[in-house]
Amino acid sequence: MILTVTLNAALDVTYEIDALVPHCSHRVRTVRERAGGKGVNVASVLGCLGVPAMATGLLGGRTGAQITGDLDARGLAHAFSTCAGASRRTVTVVSIADGDATIFNEPGPPVTPGEWSAFVEDLAGLILRVSATVVVLSGSLPRGVPDDAYAQLIVVAQAAGARTIVDAEGIPLRCAAAAHPDVVKPNLAELTAATGETDPVAGAAALRGLGALDVVVSLGGGGVLALPRDCRPLSARLRARLSGNPTGAGDAMVAALAAGLATGHDWPTMLADAVAWSAAAVLQPLAGAVDPADVARLAPDVEMEERDDAGQAR
Amino acid sequence: MILTVTLNAALDVTYEIDALVPHCSHRVRTVRERAGGKGVNVASVLGCLGVPAMATGLLGGRTGAQITGDLDARGLAHAFSTCAGASRRTVTVVSIADGDATIFNEPGPPVTPGEWSAFVEDLAGLILRVSATVVVLSGSLPRGVPDDAYAQLIVVAQAAGARTIVDAEGIPLRCAAAAHPDVVKPNLAELTAATGETDPVAGAAALRGLGALDVVVSLGGGGVLALPRDCRPLSARLRARLSGNPTGAGDAMVAALAAGLATGHDWPTMLADAVAWSAAAVLQPLAGAVDPADVARLAPDVEMEERDDAGQAR
Repeated sequence: MILTVTLNAALDVTYEIDALVPHCSHRVRTVRERAGGKGVNVASVLGCLGVPAMATGLLGGRTGAQITGDLDARGLAHAFSTCAGASRRTVTVVSIADGDATIFNEPGPPVTPGEWSAFVEDLAGLILRVSATVVVLSGSLPRGVPDDAYAQLIVVAQAAGARTIVDAEGIPLRCAAAAHPDVVKPNLAELTAATGETDPVAGAAALRGLGALDVVVSLGGGGVLALPRDCRPLSARLRARLSGNPTGAGDAMVAALAAGLATGHDWPTMLADAVAWSAAAVLQPLAGAVDPADVARLAPDVEMEERDDAGQAR
Repeated sequence: MILTVTLNAALDVTYEIDALVPHCSHRVRTVRERAGGKGVNVASVLGCLGVPAMATGLLGGRTGAQITGDLDARGLAHAFSTCAGASRRTVTVVSIADGDATIFNEPGPPVTPGEWSAFVEDLAGLILRVSATVVVLSGSLPRGVPDDAYAQLIVVAQAAGARTIVDAEGIPLRCAAAAHPDVVKPNLAELTAATGETDPVAGAAALRGLGALDVVVSLGGGGVLALPRDCRPLSARLRARLSGNPTGAGDAMVAALAAGLATGHDWPTMLADAVAWSAAAVLQPLAGAVDPADVARLAPDVEMEERDDAGQAR
């Protein structure tokens, strides 16, 4: 079982309007609401591909009830801890005219120290109860949760014998790396922000220097670079470039890495899946979904390259 | 008791962001939620000025529960009928940089014929139960409610001995006028859209021709024109022009007209109040509020003009 942690889960609301005109009033044509947040999307992608997964994290209020209602309707297993504050919404305004999206992210509920320590305990119990072998830690931290939240959860997961993947940014990412997670997966912008390095190999090496065991950098356009602890750097990408909806491609990549860790795949297999799953996500209109047929069709199109220690193709 | 009807009540949500940049992602700094809809705002203004009022209409779902929760917290009496669909939200995005607002209005729940006829019956009973002397019909109609909804409700109110005020637009306004409401209060744009007349006196006369007994046209900038059934046209405005938030100024004007009808004021008094209350609303950051001290301070600054039948000042 793979457990995905979403500390700042959201109800993702999509408004379709004719065209966005700042400082004017708009008639919303359609309203769609869906449980979201990066960890929820990872669990959802795993569900699409038949990999046993469960979503956990912190939820509260009316929005929290709507999120669990949607997870139930989608058949996604979940076991969230509750907080007194109401979970946040994100509102994505899509212009029918050009398909462009403008996004408003609510800040999320404040979490008290008591709620946080209760969640840490809940997670320790949950990992044992569902025999989780991999714990995925994804997304931003709500207010009140300490910067080293992911580091604390990594220690809890390690103590219970589970492997860990982190998809975070900024100070929480740096703190997490120090707790020796099995994999960290920043994109290039997050890697640069966290390490000051603009080169992905140098940035990944810096994250390993902070304590991360394996580092995978998503490079956009279906490309990915891995700096594993026990082999040379590897890169992979799709031969043909896809166009579509990049939202959620990173979550699908994390899902592939989690599935690979759970199964014990080697790095070439894990990276090939990572590229194929994230490319399949680009073909979907909503984050948190892939079509297994797309994954099967795209997998043979992934090309792999071993790199020398300076990151050059060999 | 004044009853205000809001068929498409809303939870008005305000997001503060730094600055609106189309097609980008925005961090919402503060989220405020408040019960809204034109009739709710009218009842709220009446409450601010100590005039007994109660809000009714149609509500449903989680958003409906949030609306009644907010009305309870604000001490506003309410007796809404329920529908199965969830009440709508409106999202107003305010840029801290320039104070400008961009608004997204959800369409509101579909109302079934059974829910509509149940509401019509509920309203008839409610008018008698609370001894309502004035019924205010404000705002847009949700999907599924017939175009002549306000006309039907006017007949119900008349049968129960209550007087009626309509603040609507388009076909619902034209249908309502045919049922002989005591007052209709369009703004100039709504009047022009409903009658094809760009001149307020000609437009108001056209609405009277359709059946409305008295017509009051709000002209912006605190100005108002009345075409009463039993006296010459009257206009009133504030001597000094105010700047502030015009949202809700029309609702405060309707509140003043309702209070005037309930008390039996003459037209000069009603129009003076209408101007002073709506000007006081402009000074408030939120719709549905006025400060009685502002009303008292502004009232002496209202100037009145009797007009001849062609609408010229005499």
